[in-house]
Formats: sequence, structure tokens, C-alpha cells
Amino acid sequence: MFDPATLTYDANGLIPVIAQESATGEVLMMAWMNAEAVAKTLESGRVTYWSRSRQAFWVKGETSGHVQRLIEMRVDCDRDSLLVLVAQEGPACHTNRRSCFYTALRGGEEVEILQPMA
Amino acid sequence: MFDPATLTYDANGLIPVIAQESATGEVLMMAWMNAEAVAKTLESGRVTYWSRSRQAFWVKGETSGHVQRLIEMRVDCDRDSLLVLVAQEGPACHTNRRSCFYTALRGGEEVEILQPMA
Repeated sequence: MFDPATLTYDANGLIPVIAQESATGEVLMMAWMNAEAVAKTLESGRVTYWSRSRQAFWVKGETSGHVQRLIEMRVDCDRDSLLVLVAQEGPACHTNRRSCFYTALRGGEEVEILQPMA
Repeated sequence: MFDPATLTYDANGLIPVIAQESATGEVLMMAWMNAEAVAKTLESGRVTYWSRSRQAFWVKGETSGHVQRLIEMRVDCDRDSLLVLVAQEGPACHTNRRSCFYTALRGGEEVEILQPMA
């Protein structure tokens, strides 16, 4: 069985996690997990991060309803970052946009490429 | 004009960067940049990371030939992570696999889902 302790965490006990929409390949957000959040995510099938600002588990969508259902977790070659393929309900971003990466640099300027969802 | 100093860097002066193949949406790797690496990447169009192990700039593909040509850089809502859409020459991973995320967790076990490229 996979053991979250075999991953490499940073000095704060965290590993960066990329969330990608499984159906479309869109990169939705980047956040952090500790070993327990990794275990909770795998057990529950609900993507669970560690909130650095609140210093607490953050079951994505628990208050907003914008849950991330885990489709598959992947580990990188150095075992120090994770990719989660998810089915995202509604917007992933707290600004109500589908993805947090809604600002593109084009011609040296910042351009907003996604609008908030209705 | 966009100023890399407007991004939020961690205590080591670094920001996490997700590299995604522009043509396919495949997430290739996660690495780090400092403000100067962000500037170099935008100026040169060649994705340039900061190597934490070597404490040096890392022009992706400079020795391997597996360059990442920058298609577009995107900033997230918190301005503390970046997404680079790239055209990846050959494998992105030092193991010669297309992506560093070649290990999937399936049925509680680690499964290798990508083979090294020929």
C-alpha cells in the first residue's frame, strides 16, 4: 500500500499539489498538503489541502460547495510534488473563476483571460 | 509592463512554477523560479528555473537539449504560483519520460504509467 510518509515534504511538512481538471486538462490551482492531507484525500476521494493561512485542513468546497472529487493522484520523479486529477464542481478559484490562473502575460502586460462564473 | 517583483515569493525568494505542454495540456513538471528567473524566461522565451540543489539558474534543456519554449506565462489569483504553457522538446523529466508525473496511485499501489522515451 502507498504510504504518504514516503513523499518528500518541505521544512514546513508540506508538499505542493497541482490540481488539474481530469475531463479537460485545465490546470485549476496550486495548493499544499501535509502527509495527513494526502491520506485524507486518498481515503475520502475529496481533495483536502492544508491551509497555510488558517493552519488547518481545507476540504476543498466544504463551505463553497465547489468540491474537487479525486480522480487520480500522481507523484513526480523526485516525490516532492503531486498532481491531482479532479472533477471540479463549479469554480476552483475563490474569485469564482474556473481556474486561479486567469491572468496571462501578453505583450508584456497582464491580461484577464477568464471571467467569474455566473 | 509586468514587473516580476510584483509576484509573491517564499522565504527563499522562490515561486513554484507548473509547466504544461501547450499543445496537449499535459502537466510536465513542477519547479521553481526566483524573480530573475521569471525575468529571464520572459526575455528569452526559454523557460529558466532556479535550481535549489545547485543554487544556480537552470535554463531548461541547456545541457540535455530538451528545451522548453515559452508559449505563455500565467499568474494565479494570489500571485504566488505560476503556470507556464510551453512547447517541450523531447522528455521534460530527467528520467527521459515525457512528464515527471509518471507514477499514479491506483488501487492503493504505485503504478508507472509512462515509459522512458526512445
